[in-house]
Formats: sequence, structure tokens, C-alpha cells
Amino acid sequence: MTDEAQHRAQMARKKALQDARIAQATQEKGLIIVHTGPGKGKTTAALGMVFRALGHGMRIGIVQFTKGARESGEAAFARELAGRVDFFALGEGFTWETQDRERDRAAAERAWAKACALMEDPHYDLVVLDELNIVLRDDTLPLEPVMEKLRQKRPALHVVITGRSARPELVELADLVTEMKLVKHPFRSGIKAQRGIEF
Amino acid sequence: MTDEAQHRAQMARKKALQDARIAQATQEKGLIIVHTGPGKGKTTAALGMVFRALGHGMRIGIVQFTKGARESGEAAFARELAGRVDFFALGEGFTWETQDRERDRAAAERAWAKACALMEDPHYDLVVLDELNIVLRDDTLPLEPVMEKLRQKRPALHVVITGRSARPELVELADLVTEMKLVKHPFRSGIKAQRGIEF
Repeated sequence: MTDEAQHRAQMARKKALQDARIAQATQEKGLIIVHTGPGKGKTTAALGMVFRALGHGMRIGIVQFTKGARESGEAAFARELAGRVDFFALGEGFTWETQDRERDRAAAERAWAKACALMEDPHYDLVVLDELNIVLRDDTLPLEPVMEKLRQKRPALHVVITGRSARPELVELADLVTEMKLVKHPFRSGIKAQRGIEF
Repeated sequence: MTDEAQHRAQMARKKALQDARIAQATQEKGLIIVHTGPGKGKTTAALGMVFRALGHGMRIGIVQFTKGARESGEAAFARELAGRVDFFALGEGFTWETQDRERDRAAAERAWAKACALMEDPHYDLVVLDELNIVLRDDTLPLEPVMEKLRQKRPALHVVITGRSARPELVELADLVTEMKLVKHPFRSGIKAQRGIEF
């Protein structure tokens, strides 16, 4: 085959794949899912959805709103999956560690801009907005633009939002809400955070 | 290098890696973790731990006690990761779908034998026993041998056990228990189960 024929064949394959993805997407409704509550497992359950979605050939975007560049297990493994999972840790550490509200607001706005870009891009089937609830709870990010964006999301897109203290408006909008309740916690009995389990 | 020298070098590397893994393992306590409750996200949170653990270079074994061969997202993605994640769906479908107690018991015993083999094998850092709570709840698998095995597990091994209605003895033994509470569920409003989200 000539270079041009190869290129045309490649474009045709790409188009066919795209058509198949669009056809499939319209058969299913994308959900807005909220993981909240004081227990462990909110971010973790979102990562589990990513694990499953990868098995179905989906493409995933993850934005972390409060976690910064510190290396985590999810960041390391997501990097291995670049192109299938795109991962952005855009926080500045937990907000209670800082008194600098302006810096927090700027970080939250940057993370939200990235979240909007991912939600608009038809490349992504599932977008995880990790700890978005936290920046909404303490008004680091204003609620209304977030609600508006979620109401107008692409129909096939799944969005998973994590963090304790989900705003009632968001719970109302969501299709699926799970509240993680703490029953027993190792930090309470003096065991340190475990690599691969807690982070 | 001669074949023999190559073999010796390979063995030395393997030994060094093993020593490093053992040294690291002794610095941390392996946890027994239980995800229970009526809400969604129990298996999903376990898969999220697998996602994180992979980022830390851990090796994982997963045994599904009630799910059978039907293809799931987690099965498909785990297959891609063979050697890092070893996945065994050894159930016969949910027990309430069948009246055949003997068949259920035989399946649960097979799954438990595999679980024991994984927990004993120092290759694995994390073992997920998915829906073990279900077969313990309805006495498809007897509780005491399971408790005994968990009490004597390798100190560095993390074990994650999922399923609603965790037995109180197991909750007592666990280091970390999270109860998933249902707040809002799409099946209640007539939306079908979503590929990549629910399975």
C-alpha cells in the first residue's frame, strides 16, 4: 500500500470506531454519581469504576480538586494508562492546611476549567471529579456554575463526584448517591496509613 | 555471559527483589478490610484499592464468590493485567437464583480453596474476596474455618472482603469496616444497569 492508501485506511478505521462509539453511547444514559459521607472508600469506589470502565474500552478523565502533586498509587497507575486514563491532580493540598483562600480559589478554578474541558470532549466516556464536594462545601468554588454544567452535560457521559458533605442540590440532581458510613477505622487504633490502601 | 552465568544473575536479581519486598512488607501491617451495607460500591471500592495497589507495584489476587463466568468490566481489565492481577470468578451466579444448595456449597468451597491458596502464596500483597460475606451470611460456607484462616494470615497481606450483611464476628476481627448506605439509586427510577458502572 502507498502511504496515502495506508493513511486513508487508517482514517476509515478511526471513523468506523467513532461511529460505533457514538451508536453505543446513545443507547445508554450517562449517570451523575455522587460518593459522599464520612466513611472511607469514596475516591476508592470511583477508581473501581475506572477499573471496570477500562474493561469495557471506555476512556476516562480524572481531576483531583484537593490532592496535589504528591505521588499516589492512583497517579502512578493512571500514568501507565495514559491515553486511556488522563489524570490531573490540580489541588494545592487540603484546604484546611492553608489560610490562603485566594490560592485555594485559584487552584479550584483551574481544576474546574480542566473538568469542563474533559466533560465537553467527546473522547471521554467517564469523568471523575475527585473531592469536588469539598471545594463546593466551603465555597472555594461557587455551586451554581457547577450545577449548570452538570445539567447540560453530554447525555452519554458518566460523571462521578466524590467528597464528604455533598451539597443537597447536587444530591438532588444525581442519579445515584452512595453515602459511605464509617464503622471501624484503623487510625483510631493507631495503625498508620497504608500504601496501596489509603493512598 | 554463559547460560549458567545468566541464570545465576537472574536468580540473584530475583533474590534481591524478594528481600526488598520482604523488608518492605515487615514495615507495614496488612489490614483486614470489610465493605458491607446495602449501598452500591462495595466491590467497586475493592477494585479501586486494586487500582491504587497496582500503582505501588503490588500483586493482587481476586476471587469472586458469587459471580460466575459472565463477562464483566473487572474481569476483562484484570485479564489485561494477568501476572499483576490474577482473577478468578468461581461463583455459580447469585444463590437466590438457584434452589440447588449442594451446587452452591460446592462452588463456595472451590472459591474458598482458591482464596486460601492465594492468601498463603507470598507472591500476593493484596487478596480480594468478593461477596464472601454473602456465602457466609447464608451458611453456604461455614464461618469458623474462614475466621481461623484470617486470624493466621501472613502479617503483611492485605485482605479485602465485600458483600452486604457481614457477620458480626468478621466485623469484630477487621481493622477497617465501611458500610455503604444507599441514598438514591437509579434502578428505583427505572434506568437500566450501566455497562462500566454497575458491572
